[in-house]
Amino acid sequence: MKVRVTVMVKKGVLDPQGKTILASLHLLGYKEVTDVKAGKILELSLPKMGKAQLEKKVKEMCDRLLANTVIEDYEFEVGE
Amino acid sequence: MKVRVTVMVKKGVLDPQGKTILASLHLLGYKEVTDVKAGKILELSLPKMGKAQLEKKVKEMCDRLLANTVIEDYEFEVGE
Repeated sequence: MKVRVTVMVKKGVLDPQGKTILASLHLLGYKEVTDVKAGKILELSLPKMGKAQLEKKVKEMCDRLLANTVIEDYEFEVGE
Repeated sequence: MKVRVTVMVKKGVLDPQGKTILASLHLLGYKEVTDVKAGKILELSLPKMGKAQLEKKVKEMCDRLLANTVIEDYEFEVGE
């Protein structure tokens, strides 16, 4: 099974990577872009298991390693 | 309007970040995870415009700046 974890910086936390990309887009002439938020995506491959068990496990991985919950929010969706 | 751009390393291209996270998950005891692919996500804020125009513009930004199309694939979805 594939699980797609999305980790984004929390609202109110500085996002220098996003700000840099925004500045570069403006330099290239895309002045209409008003904001860029940068985050990361992690696609996990796992063996087939029950949905409840899988969600519990992925949540645990996110809390322990994949996201820094002090400054980042995460969400995940389970694929086939 | 919000546009969510997802950039992932192409199949067959080395993904050291993903491999490192996979090794760390194994060290933490999550041996059932068989693969991790790491990518980035960029959430762009843009003023309201026609869908065709928006898609053309975002595709251009991806090709010029947001993704390195030699080693990365991108996709994007348009939100509200």
